[in-house]
Amino acid sequence: MAGKEVPYKIYLEESELPTSWYNVRADMKNKPAPLLNPGTGEPMKPEELEGVFCKELVKQELDNENPYIEIPGEILDFYRMYRPSPLTRAYFLEKYLQTPAKIYYKFEGNNTSGSHKLNSAIAQAYYAKKQGLKGVTTETGAGQWGTALSMACSFFGLDCKVFMVKVSYEQKPFRREVMRTYGASVTPSPSEETQVGRKILAEHPGTTGSLGCAISEAVEVAVGTEGYRYVLGSVLNQVLLHQSIIGLETKTALDKYGIKPDIIIGCAGGGSNLGGLIAPFMGEKLRGEADYRIIAVEPASCPSFTRGKYAYDFCDTGKVCPLAKMYTLGCDFIPAPNHAGGLRYHGMSSILSQLYADGLMEAVSVKQTDVFKAAEEFARVEGTLPAPESSHAIRTAMDEAIRCRETGEEKTIVFGLTGTGYFDMVAYEQFHNGTMSDYIPTDEELAESLKSLPAIGA
Amino acid sequence: MAGKEVPYKIYLEESELPTSWYNVRADMKNKPAPLLNPGTGEPMKPEELEGVFCKELVKQELDNENPYIEIPGEILDFYRMYRPSPLTRAYFLEKYLQTPAKIYYKFEGNNTSGSHKLNSAIAQAYYAKKQGLKGVTTETGAGQWGTALSMACSFFGLDCKVFMVKVSYEQKPFRREVMRTYGASVTPSPSEETQVGRKILAEHPGTTGSLGCAISEAVEVAVGTEGYRYVLGSVLNQVLLHQSIIGLETKTALDKYGIKPDIIIGCAGGGSNLGGLIAPFMGEKLRGEADYRIIAVEPASCPSFTRGKYAYDFCDTGKVCPLAKMYTLGCDFIPAPNHAGGLRYHGMSSILSQLYADGLMEAVSVKQTDVFKAAEEFARVEGTLPAPESSHAIRTAMDEAIRCRETGEEKTIVFGLTGTGYFDMVAYEQFHNGTMSDYIPTDEELAESLKSLPAIGA
Repeated sequence: MAGKEVPYKIYLEESELPTSWYNVRADMKNKPAPLLNPGTGEPMKPEELEGVFCKELVKQELDNENPYIEIPGEILDFYRMYRPSPLTRAYFLEKYLQTPAKIYYKFEGNNTSGSHKLNSAIAQAYYAKKQGLKGVTTETGAGQWGTALSMACSFFGLDCKVFMVKVSYEQKPFRREVMRTYGASVTPSPSEETQVGRKILAEHPGTTGSLGCAISEAVEVAVGTEGYRYVLGSVLNQVLLHQSIIGLETKTALDKYGIKPDIIIGCAGGGSNLGGLIAPFMGEKLRGEADYRIIAVEPASCPSFTRGKYAYDFCDTGKVCPLAKMYTLGCDFIPAPNHAGGLRYHGMSSILSQLYADGLMEAVSVKQTDVFKAAEEFARVEGTLPAPESSHAIRTAMDEAIRCRETGEEKTIVFGLTGTGYFDMVAYEQFHNGTMSDYIPTDEELAESLKSLPAIGA
Repeated sequence: MAGKEVPYKIYLEESELPTSWYNVRADMKNKPAPLLNPGTGEPMKPEELEGVFCKELVKQELDNENPYIEIPGEILDFYRMYRPSPLTRAYFLEKYLQTPAKIYYKFEGNNTSGSHKLNSAIAQAYYAKKQGLKGVTTETGAGQWGTALSMACSFFGLDCKVFMVKVSYEQKPFRREVMRTYGASVTPSPSEETQVGRKILAEHPGTTGSLGCAISEAVEVAVGTEGYRYVLGSVLNQVLLHQSIIGLETKTALDKYGIKPDIIIGCAGGGSNLGGLIAPFMGEKLRGEADYRIIAVEPASCPSFTRGKYAYDFCDTGKVCPLAKMYTLGCDFIPAPNHAGGLRYHGMSSILSQLYADGLMEAVSVKQTDVFKAAEEFARVEGTLPAPESSHAIRTAMDEAIRCRETGEEKTIVFGLTGTGYFDMVAYEQFHNGTMSDYIPTDEELAESLKSLPAIGA
């Protein structure tokens, strides 16, 4: 279909949908560094990880060899409930920006969780159910992951216990209620329910919480409760694997119309949507079959790629999880309370960290009010009110398109629109009222939080 | 493609999308009764209506003859932003209900307004812009219409002034903020800004408002402000015309797979989504080409079809609008404040009223907590958290499917899933907490509100 006029939205047929996930690690020359036991400094063994995670997911976590992993039928069925997601040609945005660039976005927000998170939630719930577990625990920041996991657990009849970062719990009461509609229990974090929560509350009274802290609480409950395991919505290799469905659909849709992107852009918090979107493209790049500019966009208030250190660090504030080698701000880092949305994790996916260290992708950081300016413009011209997270990618896609206007280059830009902002209206309200802050951590603050890096693996 | 396996979601290709709206009035033997001037009792003349509505929309309002009206290119472009909407086979719901029935739903919620309302909003904004107007005024109940109109006005650079029923304004602060994101001004109704608002506040201090009252305020401002007109999100013939895009897409998708529905179900407030969904099917029925059971579902708390009177009535509480012949509870009727969602209008589309009077469709009323029970079950098995309005149709579709389970009939049921409930979590919370009421007006209360029917046209 090369040369055929591209419709506003490309929806794949069911028969064209991926039936395997793609594991980019299989094509990486430099594999991501292994998880380390924080006690011994030795690589985590499968049996150690299986106390925290489901067995099959541990296998996926450690699999650096198999490029394709078949998606089980039950998960494919569930995907049919809300997939394929549309790949949209941003004709209106192009016109608005008066750019010769061609802009596409893969929109993952057309489901009740409001984001791409459902792609991994259903996989993790499926393997938990298959293992005969009673339930799972997790943390959620902006609430999208918690909602996604609630939906997935409800589908398989699993208990779901969510620790929600306190600032989001308070800003997003409706997210909570959606989770409850799907039968989940939701606790603001830090809480009095766990040892680590009580410790953090004692040391930082009045804290608004962080993802790292909520992770510690969820892990503590999972490890201490019979028939429970912990599941995580980003960062881990397994999550990037599940999210490869985004990139695989995107690539099939582009190939169908003979389109080759020049630049691929995604927001990066823990890295799961970006890792998923770029997976098959990065695979081509690693195999020397094609070249692409790949750009990670992170908030200036939580700049792990652009201002962090590539080092072994704890995945959680409570320092109970394994150590991962990643770009990190230090596990004690907590972004400014005014920071909106979910990109508030101190570290970054090990896979993406290794790719970035190897010069295979770029990273930029953007200021919060610039992001919301892009979000509002996008909402007005493309119709969809975007999530604050996704709007980081919009900002950079717009900046690249404006650059094309200046140079006259007809580049093809693809970005990930990971979700909708319907539960983020408090942040939009702050933006409209001019009360949104652009706080960026100082060098001294970052140096201080990097002091929390462990000696192991350094 | 008859006999081909039906996918979970049927998305039409751009080339298959309708390019004309279908005007069911052209095929009606008994035309809907004309609007009357409340002063003279004479049918409204175009020039009288043009003081309130845009000229081209008045033409559409009065057109009982032309079966097809071409959709202007600019509107088609905008439709491409969020259409086609998917026609979904509810495989999961069928399995959950263990029914031999085949259930389909046309889902109109995949856009930021969260509902089908955008289909008419963009048409009305387009004609206002084409006429060179400065802006439009309107009312909104649940907020979906106001959001849709804000999006449409933003697209064409028109001012948008929304009077929002006070109870919704208070329950849905986030809807307000979405409208503001698109540049609209939002005022809770009744307000002090209009004569009719001040009068209603004086007579009913503490009222939570009603659609009829908000209409009066919006009309007063439109008529009294240079370069402004009033636009309405339901009830009117023109709105049902624009909404026929829903039914046309549905029919094309069904035809593509050789599917013939037995029962078509939609919720009914003012009647626009139901009128749009059934339009081409009703056309076949009127022309004797096919037969379908068509069911309107209304809330038991606002039962215009099932307990109202077919008579001329004011369209608004303030009695400034023309008289329409319709099933009505009397323009003084205000549903219980606890009633959730947007189906709170005292009357019903004149087109649907005539079709119902002629025995061409059925109507049922359902209790609020039964509706939310269906909503929650649907959310859990089909993934999408539905709007309270849409859930009325879900309730009846489930009831019909359960009947099929009992009789063993393999009926094909199509219903309209008009929108998502993401901004209705206060109502879901009431349902979860057991504080939701099932208040149904008494016969005495209805007799009282029907006293407000005018003598004219009786």
